[in-house]
Amino acid sequence: MKTRLDKQFAFIREIDKEKRIKRQTLTTQGVQENDAEHAWHMAVMTLLLSEYANEEIDVLKTISMLLIHDLVEIYAGDTYAYDSEKQKTAQEREKKAAEKLYALLPKDQEEKFKDLWIEFEEGKTPEAKFAKVMDRIQPLMLNDATNGKMWETHKVQLSQILNRNEIVKEGSKILYEYEVENFILPNVKKGHIIKE
Amino acid sequence: MKTRLDKQFAFIREIDKEKRIKRQTLTTQGVQENDAEHAWHMAVMTLLLSEYANEEIDVLKTISMLLIHDLVEIYAGDTYAYDSEKQKTAQEREKKAAEKLYALLPKDQEEKFKDLWIEFEEGKTPEAKFAKVMDRIQPLMLNDATNGKMWETHKVQLSQILNRNEIVKEGSKILYEYEVENFILPNVKKGHIIKE
Repeated sequence: MKTRLDKQFAFIREIDKEKRIKRQTLTTQGVQENDAEHAWHMAVMTLLLSEYANEEIDVLKTISMLLIHDLVEIYAGDTYAYDSEKQKTAQEREKKAAEKLYALLPKDQEEKFKDLWIEFEEGKTPEAKFAKVMDRIQPLMLNDATNGKMWETHKVQLSQILNRNEIVKEGSKILYEYEVENFILPNVKKGHIIKE
Repeated sequence: MKTRLDKQFAFIREIDKEKRIKRQTLTTQGVQENDAEHAWHMAVMTLLLSEYANEEIDVLKTISMLLIHDLVEIYAGDTYAYDSEKQKTAQEREKKAAEKLYALLPKDQEEKFKDLWIEFEEGKTPEAKFAKVMDRIQPLMLNDATNGKMWETHKVQLSQILNRNEIVKEGSKILYEYEVENFILPNVKKGHIIKE
């Protein structure tokens, strides 16, 4: 029987693969960001921005969700936010991936991580809502900082961005206003985001 | 006067540069790991391994330290653990870097982040001690998973590794035993680590 520590380290080694999952966002260095970098960035952002949550949040729980919520992409791949075809099958693929990945852990931690992932996906608790704010605003901030290059590459429309960011209001009205004013509207003006 | 949110986002944009600071560790993909990936990996490890701390720890505080402790390298550069010449000047360079970087934040958060960084560096509290365990064991685990290639490149000796890992005992006796048995000794046997 594998010891508890052997199982934990098997998982720790396996999730190293998150560092190779590329996202459709550029870092300020101009290279594609990966999932591990994205998770780290959002975790630090949560330490700084939790004061703007609509409701009080448990910061550790929120950061825990953010650190692990993309791990399913190790098996399911990254699905671009505006790829509506792939989005249709993403949920099923990611559920299977979660079953496989979290099974590496000791039972109690398998349950804990799966529950955190499901809570994030459902987006109903104050922590999950705020985690979704981070997940939306972090790439907006980077797209703005890299002259909207990825928006232009994917011919993204204003309505798509606004739809995807509706949920931000539920987690933080203040950050919603900030992102619209600082990251979205200026890029419509500059022509980086298509205004239908 | 810059608003609080403008300052926070100026900092959030600046720390994006942590994603370009390369470490002397290979990921399981065989490429050099960067500081952001390293911090993310240790944060998830803390969620799983805090149960092995010698003393009870505040997990959020420990993770906060790990998420930010390498930010100074954005200005000071990464100093390889076994580069004794560069290590001599690292402390001074990193102190200056911390002053510059954290000054981007609103005053209260500047203080909070600087205090966390100093607490980590001093390594005296239970949280700082456990954070140092993560900072030591994560690269050992990756070096072991990549056939000790980086140890061989840098001709690292067993005594250097054991000296550097003395501190692990203070944070977690259980993880110290585990790393010696699973990550260090097998690589001495295989000749990846030089035994004087």
